Amino acid sequence: MPNIWILRIGHRPQRDKRVTTHVALSSRALGASGIYVDTADRVLEENIRSVVDRFGGDYTIETGIQWKKLLKDFDGEIVHLTMYGQRFDESLPKISREKDLLIVVGAEKVPPEVYQAADFNISVGNQPHSEIAALAILLYSFTDGRNLYSDRNGNLTVIPNERGKTVVEKHS
Amino acid sequence: MPNIWILRIGHRPQRDKRVTTHVALSSRALGASGIYVDTADRVLEENIRSVVDRFGGDYTIETGIQWKKLLKDFDGEIVHLTMYGQRFDESLPKISREKDLLIVVGAEKVPPEVYQAADFNISVGNQPHSEIAALAILLYSFTDGRNLYSDRNGNLTVIPNERGKTVVEKHS
Repeated sequence: MPNIWILRIGHRPQRDKRVTTHVALSSRALGASGIYVDTADRVLEENIRSVVDRFGGDYTIETGIQWKKLLKDFDGEIVHLTMYGQRFDESLPKISREKDLLIVVGAEKVPPEVYQAADFNISVGNQPHSEIAALAILLYSFTDGRNLYSDRNGNLTVIPNERGKTVVEKHS
Repeated sequence: MPNIWILRIGHRPQRDKRVTTHVALSSRALGASGIYVDTADRVLEENIRSVVDRFGGDYTIETGIQWKKLLKDFDGEIVHLTMYGQRFDESLPKISREKDLLIVVGAEKVPPEVYQAADFNISVGNQPHSEIAALAILLYSFTDGRNLYSDRNGNLTVIPNERGKTVVEKHS
């Protein structure tokens, strides 16, 4: 299986702190390899790395990146998530499963260059939505949800429980 | 198909404004009938109603509700989304498709009463996640995504487009 990367464009550290955190955590939970964020944000980086340190896996985060260069140099397919894009159920089968994938998640205004650079502009429904929700459904469908319960070899592991909370802590 | 309702617990208007908005918008996009929010929040109500006014459908929002009473009186099945819960892929087939469904989405601390009142405590993966992403995957899977492209008869309709933005406005 190739790697899946997320590119978050239009991140404003104060306003988008929680939304971009949700984008990172949910894409990690669904098996993405890492996230690129356009605006530099050390606090966001530390928060995500702290989750990786505790719960395992090798999800990476890089902020303050030059997104135009990344789009130009990326070796793989580029998908841009937008409520104006083509139907997700019709587009998904066209995306290669052999190449790496870069999924662009925009904030309020996305420059026209992104629509042009993308191999696919895709909507998960054409209603006002949540970019977090749309990304989650796209990743879940593209991977058949196979990464949701994969072992991350973390220091903390949550064990499914009917009514309570079970967390196993590994002492190293 | 029965109705699906969302109950958002632990909403703090300042801090959670955008996250609860994402919960509401994405559940509307995926076909839920409406959302109940524990803390009164007129701004949130107005924002969601404005989307419904423009884009159609009959999604409702009520804030400042007594959630313990709602959990007690709800006529249908109650699902609580928690990263500590049972595997979603194993739990989903057990949920009735005949009864109404109430999905409880918590914020940071969820009182033990919620775990007790729920018919199912379910996790979408046992990794740190986003409640917005987990809810979206649960709704998408439970409904087979059938509501994502349903017509809402709104004044504004977005038409899928390969590279640009196409919005049709109905004049009434």
